[in-house]
Amino acid sequence: MIDVEEARSRILAALRPVGQEIVPLALAYRRVLAVDVRARVAHPPADVSAMDGYAVRAADAVAGAQLRVIGEASAGHPFAGSLGPGEAVRLFTGSFVPAGGDAILIQENTVPVLGGIEVTETVAVARHIRKQGQDFALGDMLLAAGRRMTVRDIGLTAAANHPWVNVFQRPRVAILATGDEISLPGEMLGPGGIVNSNSTMLAAMVAAYGGEPFVLPAAGDDTDEIAAAADLARGADLLVTTGGASVGAHDLMHAGLGRQGFALDFWKIAMRPGKPLIFGRIGDMPVLALPGNPVAAYVCGVLYLGPALAVLAGQEVLRPVFETARLQGNLGPNDAREDYLRARLHWHDGGWVVEPFARQDSAMLTPLAASGALLRRPPFQPGLAEGDMVEIIRLDL
Amino acid sequence: MIDVEEARSRILAALRPVGQEIVPLALAYRRVLAVDVRARVAHPPADVSAMDGYAVRAADAVAGAQLRVIGEASAGHPFAGSLGPGEAVRLFTGSFVPAGGDAILIQENTVPVLGGIEVTETVAVARHIRKQGQDFALGDMLLAAGRRMTVRDIGLTAAANHPWVNVFQRPRVAILATGDEISLPGEMLGPGGIVNSNSTMLAAMVAAYGGEPFVLPAAGDDTDEIAAAADLARGADLLVTTGGASVGAHDLMHAGLGRQGFALDFWKIAMRPGKPLIFGRIGDMPVLALPGNPVAAYVCGVLYLGPALAVLAGQEVLRPVFETARLQGNLGPNDAREDYLRARLHWHDGGWVVEPFARQDSAMLTPLAASGALLRRPPFQPGLAEGDMVEIIRLDL
Repeated sequence: MIDVEEARSRILAALRPVGQEIVPLALAYRRVLAVDVRARVAHPPADVSAMDGYAVRAADAVAGAQLRVIGEASAGHPFAGSLGPGEAVRLFTGSFVPAGGDAILIQENTVPVLGGIEVTETVAVARHIRKQGQDFALGDMLLAAGRRMTVRDIGLTAAANHPWVNVFQRPRVAILATGDEISLPGEMLGPGGIVNSNSTMLAAMVAAYGGEPFVLPAAGDDTDEIAAAADLARGADLLVTTGGASVGAHDLMHAGLGRQGFALDFWKIAMRPGKPLIFGRIGDMPVLALPGNPVAAYVCGVLYLGPALAVLAGQEVLRPVFETARLQGNLGPNDAREDYLRARLHWHDGGWVVEPFARQDSAMLTPLAASGALLRRPPFQPGLAEGDMVEIIRLDL
Repeated sequence: MIDVEEARSRILAALRPVGQEIVPLALAYRRVLAVDVRARVAHPPADVSAMDGYAVRAADAVAGAQLRVIGEASAGHPFAGSLGPGEAVRLFTGSFVPAGGDAILIQENTVPVLGGIEVTETVAVARHIRKQGQDFALGDMLLAAGRRMTVRDIGLTAAANHPWVNVFQRPRVAILATGDEISLPGEMLGPGGIVNSNSTMLAAMVAAYGGEPFVLPAAGDDTDEIAAAADLARGADLLVTTGGASVGAHDLMHAGLGRQGFALDFWKIAMRPGKPLIFGRIGDMPVLALPGNPVAAYVCGVLYLGPALAVLAGQEVLRPVFETARLQGNLGPNDAREDYLRARLHWHDGGWVVEPFARQDSAMLTPLAASGALLRRPPFQPGLAEGDMVEIIRLDL
């Protein structure tokens, strides 16, 4: 058995980013940039007013002075001329500051007089002016390749005048469930049958992590069926299987995938749930064989599949983010396996409190659905008491 | 001016959930349930083995006893008969436990003997059996209407044998940018022109919050154009506009929307950025008029548009979640307006540290893109020093 960190490192080291594509900026949310975004314009494009008021020369705009208003510039309609001594130009928020102006006198600090305004409060140079390029200059590097785009990044890229962005393709992930006992949700269950929840759950997870899932027809517990199904996955950037990881079934899975030239990297991780995970490859295609218990499949998804999709999609390598929380309840000492307990999470008294469920069976989906976090226990961690600080991963999907 | 909490309450109180639709479970990630999900099967469907081994009667399976192996049950292939005294049935993980069996003797605790096995370790009743319905029973309430579905919920709903779910429709949100100066990303900029980053950013935000955005052609600073554009929004569940919120332009916006029968609820919020927000309705359609500065539009999006989309989509009403973090740097006293500072966020020494950017101009997108959080300052908060605990909203989009 290898440990969690080594397993993740070996999986990630075996992956290469997929190809690129151009997408409309409007559809780029959560896509990973393949090329840096640089500014195609300056922002603001010129010195602009941050307020409604008047462009003035600060030297003239002292309390009590009167200024002649020689024109107006609204947003999108710059004043064509320039501003001389004793003059002012009416402006609005977003108006370009005309040549010769070096400050904005806000409307509230003026009173109207014949042909112009009287200044009621002295203004300083540069006051209320957004300088050209104060946010970014033409050519500035704004966002680096490898970044997964946020809504804010889309705003920034739009402001930089890009209608398109060059991103990595969505990694194509084939999902294969195995087992004689499983049927799809809503289908008639056979004798001894159970619903296959893994395929639908993992497809949703792949999509949530930015991949393009395709679900293969399930394979029964039969070498030929597993081999045939694995063949349908060819061309995928990753094949994810579930089931067939118990002692007897493992041999079957190995034999079925082996028929397609499966090369094992490792089997078994010192963790709970998720011990019987298998990783290897068929030709160029990496294969991640997850346990059949849905909770184990989900936890392995968070710890391995998420980071794997990040690497395939060209994102900087990410480890799951561990935060800390106060323990509610008590826990006995841990054994040799790293443990990921399903747990409620709530904010109390200025911090997160984590409460592991009493039942941690890896087939139980109800406590998983009700969890806000996984509580991580390192191997051989001593017993823990109420209020102890523990490591958690918050579950956001 | 009203405060942030009152503004949010008034917006949310004015909204009603949209209609419902049926979607395939596989596409239900982040959709809001319109009807409770109840179990259509029990999980597990019968008593099943959690290990590879033998079904036995615990009373017989004492160390040293020999048991006759009368058959085998693999997952999906239950044993047809029942188990009598001194008998065992070979099982695998997921196999149904045959009638008469009340414990699982794991493979490791047996040695083969002629016609059967010898027990090497005594087993207790119910050991390694997952009881029928231990996760959920037929008819159990699993997920309540109003819940936004996670990947885990999809797994649970699949296990409960549902191929379809009844969800609220995605709220349709019309997005209208106004201003003579704006042009879409990639289009030629006019004199005094600036790129419209708001429409694309807000469309991405609406989609990220679970809505269906549609972007209207921009309206110039002209009453007729604004009225015509607002007319194109009819049928939307919400109209979001940007710009036209400065002093002069406000009148224009009000006049243009008023031409369509706009009824004002409130204008101006005691916050920064985002003061000139307008809320009201045109007939049945709520109208949220955001400031034109993209940072202000984004912050108002997080504080008002996100919760508004939750209510429109039938989700339980959500307030933004405030956490706490340690301040890096110092801040002077705050004025009468609730302040939302853009800030870097990093995990250090067991907790989050938040570092506000020096420049907080509401037109600057580069610090917004680099932010991990908004730091909330209540009105009249005294100055703060390094290490003080402050309230933050983490930015996940």
